[in-house]
Amino acid sequence: MYEASLAEGFLFTDLYQLTMAQVYYRLGVHEQLAEFDYYFRSYPDYGKHQAGYAVNAGLEWLLDWIETTHVTDVDIEHLATLRSASGDPLFAGDFLAWLRQNGDFSGIGIAAIPEGRVVHPNVPIAVVVGPLVIAQILETSLLNHLNYPTLIATKASRVHEAGSGRPVLEFGMRRGPERGSNAGTRAALIGGADFSSNVGTSFATGVPAKGTHAHSLIQLFLAKGESELDAFRAYADVFPDDCLLLVDTIDTIESGIPNAITVFEELRRSGHEPVGIRLDSGDLAYLAIQAARMLNDAGFADTSIVLSSNLDELAIWQIVSQIRSEAPSYRVDPDHLIGRLSYGVGTRLITSQGDASLDGVYKLVAIEEPSGWRPAIKVSESQAKIPNPGRKQVWRLYDARGTATADVLGRADETIETGRPITLHHPVIPTSMRRLPEGAVSEVEVLPVPVMANGRRLEQSPTIDELRRRRSADLERLDPGVRRLINPHVYHVSLTDNLWDMKIGMVRRLMGQ
Amino acid sequence: MYEASLAEGFLFTDLYQLTMAQVYYRLGVHEQLAEFDYYFRSYPDYGKHQAGYAVNAGLEWLLDWIETTHVTDVDIEHLATLRSASGDPLFAGDFLAWLRQNGDFSGIGIAAIPEGRVVHPNVPIAVVVGPLVIAQILETSLLNHLNYPTLIATKASRVHEAGSGRPVLEFGMRRGPERGSNAGTRAALIGGADFSSNVGTSFATGVPAKGTHAHSLIQLFLAKGESELDAFRAYADVFPDDCLLLVDTIDTIESGIPNAITVFEELRRSGHEPVGIRLDSGDLAYLAIQAARMLNDAGFADTSIVLSSNLDELAIWQIVSQIRSEAPSYRVDPDHLIGRLSYGVGTRLITSQGDASLDGVYKLVAIEEPSGWRPAIKVSESQAKIPNPGRKQVWRLYDARGTATADVLGRADETIETGRPITLHHPVIPTSMRRLPEGAVSEVEVLPVPVMANGRRLEQSPTIDELRRRRSADLERLDPGVRRLINPHVYHVSLTDNLWDMKIGMVRRLMGQ
Repeated sequence: MYEASLAEGFLFTDLYQLTMAQVYYRLGVHEQLAEFDYYFRSYPDYGKHQAGYAVNAGLEWLLDWIETTHVTDVDIEHLATLRSASGDPLFAGDFLAWLRQNGDFSGIGIAAIPEGRVVHPNVPIAVVVGPLVIAQILETSLLNHLNYPTLIATKASRVHEAGSGRPVLEFGMRRGPERGSNAGTRAALIGGADFSSNVGTSFATGVPAKGTHAHSLIQLFLAKGESELDAFRAYADVFPDDCLLLVDTIDTIESGIPNAITVFEELRRSGHEPVGIRLDSGDLAYLAIQAARMLNDAGFADTSIVLSSNLDELAIWQIVSQIRSEAPSYRVDPDHLIGRLSYGVGTRLITSQGDASLDGVYKLVAIEEPSGWRPAIKVSESQAKIPNPGRKQVWRLYDARGTATADVLGRADETIETGRPITLHHPVIPTSMRRLPEGAVSEVEVLPVPVMANGRRLEQSPTIDELRRRRSADLERLDPGVRRLINPHVYHVSLTDNLWDMKIGMVRRLMGQ
Repeated sequence: MYEASLAEGFLFTDLYQLTMAQVYYRLGVHEQLAEFDYYFRSYPDYGKHQAGYAVNAGLEWLLDWIETTHVTDVDIEHLATLRSASGDPLFAGDFLAWLRQNGDFSGIGIAAIPEGRVVHPNVPIAVVVGPLVIAQILETSLLNHLNYPTLIATKASRVHEAGSGRPVLEFGMRRGPERGSNAGTRAALIGGADFSSNVGTSFATGVPAKGTHAHSLIQLFLAKGESELDAFRAYADVFPDDCLLLVDTIDTIESGIPNAITVFEELRRSGHEPVGIRLDSGDLAYLAIQAARMLNDAGFADTSIVLSSNLDELAIWQIVSQIRSEAPSYRVDPDHLIGRLSYGVGTRLITSQGDASLDGVYKLVAIEEPSGWRPAIKVSESQAKIPNPGRKQVWRLYDARGTATADVLGRADETIETGRPITLHHPVIPTSMRRLPEGAVSEVEVLPVPVMANGRRLEQSPTIDELRRRRSADLERLDPGVRRLINPHVYHVSLTDNLWDMKIGMVRRLMGQ
């Protein structure tokens, strides 16, 4: 029996969601409508350098999970076995009977910023409305489905930017977080990886998987008393049109590249064009230059050079810089070399090495009473942790150049228009505000769109290509300073006058209690 | 359609395993028996401090996956759609027909160090023997199933050690790596967490889930115009014997603890004993002392104090140290306070913050020829990356005190006995060796045991408690210096004379080619 499968359904949640559910059930408020915001508080910070934006990912697989998940008899039977400290059942029979009847997400509606879009801290990315108990139980799975993919899509976007648009190949499955690696691969494909080695997830997402061979192919030939050249020939024989050879098993410059060139010449004589080589160890910038020189001299100036081995955005940036400065002294044109590179990025992408978590949270912001929606808030010693209360609207403002200049949170009953001046409040600091004069804003875009009603998605799931187009379009409208890998400009996330006043008023009333 | 499910079967692998498989098929060596070692190269290194040992985890879920996974028609149909650069099918019909017939793990045998045991770098943790193509395809899934859980079990063991045996609660699901969080929870339960909030995985592993309530419970009451005290009373009413209250929603000392004490007194009057409080923000050491003082003064000296909020092993260590030095000045007995603490550990455990990956590898070490097994090796500029070749045996040596003193790798045809002197080689440095005289070793333990034959597990899956007992037993026999959280002693991993000679001979022959 594969135990893991028990753990991926309705019980993919934290126990306290269920204990709170029983309290709400007992109070009779369990079916009152509640609204929760999902947002993250800060960009990933990789030690020396912090991201200036994030790429939203995970939404579609979350919607899949919500649509297909409901409580089962096995789940209920398990919950009935849990005991309190006194030995009595932790969950009462009437509550479990209610949960058996109502343990699905058919009452859930979600408005969300579409997957693939650029997102910023404190801006609600998903807004969930539903019966209090069900929306509360959803918290853990929602956070789980969105935090990690957004983290990985963000890293992938940075890797893509560092590589100046050259192909990025996601190779991380072997060091990735068990089953979560599939979500990581998908997020990488959305955020900036062009292809992945992960066959199943490539299949599921409709992106062809990529990969050639490992060191073990050469090792096998050597163990049999044959040579690296024999191994390369065997590979070229089976894949004459996809011949990309890993050249560092014995010695890159003395053995691997000369043997690859021999095979490439044989391929060409038989009417096939070789694809290239892969370098997986050593000083990749230096070896890429030497490989380019040797391949050029042999008449293979158009073959690819794939680099891999502990790459991330800074390693790629350093390699490109080193090639620019060193290649000319070996008679290699740096632009030509950089233009034939691809990057295989594994562990450091799928684990977001440097910052392995996104601090996304899911906060109650409003509850529907007979008199209407009432805002909810939570105070904190850390001002930045106070949620923005109430039902809200979110807009992205574009300046006269068409560049995104701020995301603005306002009350749900407000509108923002381009034709009028707009006052923006810093979400935390009372004295920090700015006034955008009439004409400063060329476009006001409403960010969240309804994606689910009554537990059913409202649109078909987009393709990876559609998600990538959203990302590219958003990145093009982002200030280059915000896109910068190191020390980026801070993108503005602001509140309207009305929301600011409501938030401050609520905090004061609460602290005055 | 939940896309993720397509990606968790036989195609949960890297494409290059399948392209290499086709090469082996074409060469006719695809069914030759091959042996691969799984091992990691270095302990997790969390920036300022490196682990001195690791806890082996993931094996049982790997065996589940192997037992239940085989290629499907859908998988084969997908592979048939992949195209080479020329537009021809990447995989030929005869190869796919072979794979359709043979795409399962019924030829696989595994010997492994049992899950839960303490493990060290370069020691084979799992040794796989099977038909070359199938054992090669298994690589990615095996690495994926073992690397991440071992990483998390290791972190959990350190957290457990820092907490001096007080309960550790795993809370990380919401920031964990999507589905991989379940494997992370299970690994944490093996490595050092006593309980988890993750309901499904707790269910699957037979450990009762733990959890009480979130800030949102208080928020809801406040939004309805009621108070924190009302919320606490409602919770206590439903869970009178499990009343553990989160006291930091408004103000821990001014509001949360006094309100909790009021409810605790009411509970006691009605014949129930309260469980305790949880602190989730602020200076946890200081607040724990104040909470203890207030609870003691109110007659609740036996209630638990659960700490959470960005905890890891160093944070816990610091909190315990601060309590030891500060508590007496508030008339609080530090030992009594430390003895009532529990630790809720979330993000930093499930993501192994500081080092988010384990560098486990899977290397071809031998291939069976008609003449017998032939060892395989791979050279590398980095000496530490040269695998130890051939079929091997692995022993753990215990010294006269019964403490584990070294793990030793030897050739499969060797034995080590306590009654004779033993010479141990450093695995990389030729001049580093030591000779253990007769009598220095009190016990020689063979580490790997057969766990799978013909694709079927040989023993029933052990319970989490059995896995924990293995861990505890191994930790008790580990030198305290090796267990130390910071700057641990280096545990010895050594080679026998015979294996050292074989390795050096093979490297010399290969480099001389």
